[in-house]
Amino acid sequence: MDAPSPSLLDQFAAIVGAPYALRDPEAIAPYLIEPREKFGGATALVLRPGSVAEVAAILGLANRTRTPIVPQGGNTGVVGGQMPSAAGNEIVVALSRLNRVRVIDPANNTMTVDAGVTLAAAREAAEAADRLFPLSLASEGSCQIGGNLSTNAGGTAVLAYGNTRELTLGVEVVLPSGEIWNGLRTLRKDNTGYDLKDIFIGAEGTLGIITAAVLKLFPRPKGVGVAIVGVSDPTAALGLLNIARANAGGSLTAAELMPRIAIETVVRFVPGARDPLGEPHAWYMLLEVSSTLSQKAADATLEAIFEEGSAAGLVEDGTLAQSAQQAADFRRIRETLSEVQKHLGGSIKHDVAVPVGKVPELLARADVAAQKVAPGCRPFAFGHFGDGNIHLNISQPEGMDKQAYLARWGEMNSAIHGVVLELGGTISAEHGIGRLKREMLAQVKSPVELATMRTIKAALDPNGIMNPGKVL
Amino acid sequence: MDAPSPSLLDQFAAIVGAPYALRDPEAIAPYLIEPREKFGGATALVLRPGSVAEVAAILGLANRTRTPIVPQGGNTGVVGGQMPSAAGNEIVVALSRLNRVRVIDPANNTMTVDAGVTLAAAREAAEAADRLFPLSLASEGSCQIGGNLSTNAGGTAVLAYGNTRELTLGVEVVLPSGEIWNGLRTLRKDNTGYDLKDIFIGAEGTLGIITAAVLKLFPRPKGVGVAIVGVSDPTAALGLLNIARANAGGSLTAAELMPRIAIETVVRFVPGARDPLGEPHAWYMLLEVSSTLSQKAADATLEAIFEEGSAAGLVEDGTLAQSAQQAADFRRIRETLSEVQKHLGGSIKHDVAVPVGKVPELLARADVAAQKVAPGCRPFAFGHFGDGNIHLNISQPEGMDKQAYLARWGEMNSAIHGVVLELGGTISAEHGIGRLKREMLAQVKSPVELATMRTIKAALDPNGIMNPGKVL
Repeated sequence: MDAPSPSLLDQFAAIVGAPYALRDPEAIAPYLIEPREKFGGATALVLRPGSVAEVAAILGLANRTRTPIVPQGGNTGVVGGQMPSAAGNEIVVALSRLNRVRVIDPANNTMTVDAGVTLAAAREAAEAADRLFPLSLASEGSCQIGGNLSTNAGGTAVLAYGNTRELTLGVEVVLPSGEIWNGLRTLRKDNTGYDLKDIFIGAEGTLGIITAAVLKLFPRPKGVGVAIVGVSDPTAALGLLNIARANAGGSLTAAELMPRIAIETVVRFVPGARDPLGEPHAWYMLLEVSSTLSQKAADATLEAIFEEGSAAGLVEDGTLAQSAQQAADFRRIRETLSEVQKHLGGSIKHDVAVPVGKVPELLARADVAAQKVAPGCRPFAFGHFGDGNIHLNISQPEGMDKQAYLARWGEMNSAIHGVVLELGGTISAEHGIGRLKREMLAQVKSPVELATMRTIKAALDPNGIMNPGKVL
Repeated sequence: MDAPSPSLLDQFAAIVGAPYALRDPEAIAPYLIEPREKFGGATALVLRPGSVAEVAAILGLANRTRTPIVPQGGNTGVVGGQMPSAAGNEIVVALSRLNRVRVIDPANNTMTVDAGVTLAAAREAAEAADRLFPLSLASEGSCQIGGNLSTNAGGTAVLAYGNTRELTLGVEVVLPSGEIWNGLRTLRKDNTGYDLKDIFIGAEGTLGIITAAVLKLFPRPKGVGVAIVGVSDPTAALGLLNIARANAGGSLTAAELMPRIAIETVVRFVPGARDPLGEPHAWYMLLEVSSTLSQKAADATLEAIFEEGSAAGLVEDGTLAQSAQQAADFRRIRETLSEVQKHLGGSIKHDVAVPVGKVPELLARADVAAQKVAPGCRPFAFGHFGDGNIHLNISQPEGMDKQAYLARWGEMNSAIHGVVLELGGTISAEHGIGRLKREMLAQVKSPVELATMRTIKAALDPNGIMNPGKVL
């Protein structure tokens, strides 16, 4: 497709006004670099609309002129969904100026926010109204609600509260036609026709632009208990998870798995970090229980889990955080894992999920498969055990050349994804498809499912202007 | 559209075999009567397929021959969605022979069941695996999982566990083309393309036939506490609800509201029923707390709610069930309300929801609006306060002719729905649209939303064979 003509660019720029139509390469540059620097792109124009009406005018013009549009939120996605192609014919629409918290309704436990509100700002607004918005991600200071919805973001609290999809009651969407659909429902129950909301959530900007959302709020817990437990293997961890669920039910707000190598790496490279348990263990679980009653109740539930797990021979050792500071220290071990892994050299990453009971088999078989691709490689698999979602990252063998290792990315992906698919799993649990996994989609979806997705895309975006080259 | 020819009927019948192709009017009759007997219909053929492949063959033939199909589950819906039209040209496909529980996976907390499994059988299968499937409806002995999904059924446990949509991880659907989409995912996280599942859930059989589903399971609570509390008005009830939420969080599994007239009617007409509190109160709340720890913990949480509510001056009186029998008695008061209301004569019904904080205003304004339509009428409004979902039923004035009162159904609907819409509510919280509310849909949805729904319908069912005349 040809690049938009200068006069067409002027028409787009006029919608938002000159200060918000970025054409200077230096001003545009930050919109073309994403966190992992895997996906570049080019564009002649970044638009920063200041209202939903402006977003609507942009898409209306784009639809009439067949101009491809790439929506962008906080630009924290790791699969390239927010990046324009290198062809330079796509216009980036950045939502950051739509940053109002529109309404907070504590009695209804909802808030309505613009797409460009950062996740951190949304969480703070909830807290100021004595409520919890539970979505929590490493990138929450930068990522925006619109991007969270478009990628159906996950994070650490999914076990108790669900993915972004489950946290959303309503959306406002500018359709590819430029029409505005006001679906900002604040209701817990509404059975009046098709569920349009969930078509746009997780669609990665390929069906329209989400401009606002109604989010669910929850009571703030009065106490949060955190424990780290050492176990011999993932099968013991699975047994302990089931005991934790049975005792804590919906108050089990995290159940994260970490291998010994993760603890070792944190202790070695994070200033001030300490091994939480005296002796080394092959695997560790971080358990978090939140109580609406009290800190004592949260800790008592963790004690009960620990006792039952010990009696069943599943627990080698464990420690319960004795203070908020210690709880934060325990959590920080888990939170630093993505970052700290860099010290081990190149890492080939997999964002996979399997049925929870299959996690032990996944880890065992993935290890074997990875060693065949790169003998001596170091699996550094951690993550959201309670959701069956493992960040199955594989660090390079010690001493190997980093680039030579990373050159095996595709081969390693195929080996690991092969195991995942045999176990009924998914190749993208949290991060989406974007550009990174688009070519893989045909391998993991049935022709019927792909065709149905294409039918939806063609019906809602007949001119194909929305985020081309992503997902499908 | 013409009725299918005898030879076409033979072709359909051959797919399932003669014993399961009902053509005798007496055998067909039960499929043409629904619970409230508001919607009749006619058909020359009821098909009872015994496999997903047979369902696929039926829809394939229907699509090629443009034969309209009406899917039917347990035939318990109250909006006529499962009834063929009176024209007689539609074929009913009843799913009851697809009644296997396919897989239960306690470690993953999921089960995969055929569409024709009754809700009660699904709950029992979960319980046999020491798990809870929380969906619970008055009709659970007859209604089927396929119908529950197609109507996104609600019920009493939505407050803690969500609607059927939130309880479903995957579906298997026969598309109007006759193709089978196997979307039976058992994963908590899967961000690989569009959320097709939720397009079919709640679509009332207008986009395809759901033949199986993967359902979420939960730990079985070790204790369930039930209390009935008397309050002066719905505003006090709202305050108490917020206290209950703050204390119980996700373990608050029911928060139901009942007016004095409901208690009086139950005491008068239900054998053995007793007034739960000594003195009469204008309004009552039934609160239920489930604990994964113990009965004692559940009761302690209810005591804490009661104490805080009393200190805030919101509670007039209250009683905590002292035994499982007493808890069942308390619950039965709530469960009999739909039934017992018949003793007050004609009832005009509304299944509405508003933002939770707006329930007091809804009840006050609806009362005024109803009195204008039928002076002396008796609002009998009860239901799922925690979800903002009120069964806003209006019993006839004492002594008025029942038929004369019911003749005002449309006028009363308009008055009540007018208030509901002004408060940002919905005219169908639980029951769906079906035939009953199809004409109202255009009044409550924006043209953009209706057009988008029609776009989806045309894209997925281009020949319009699926459940015509329903929803859209």
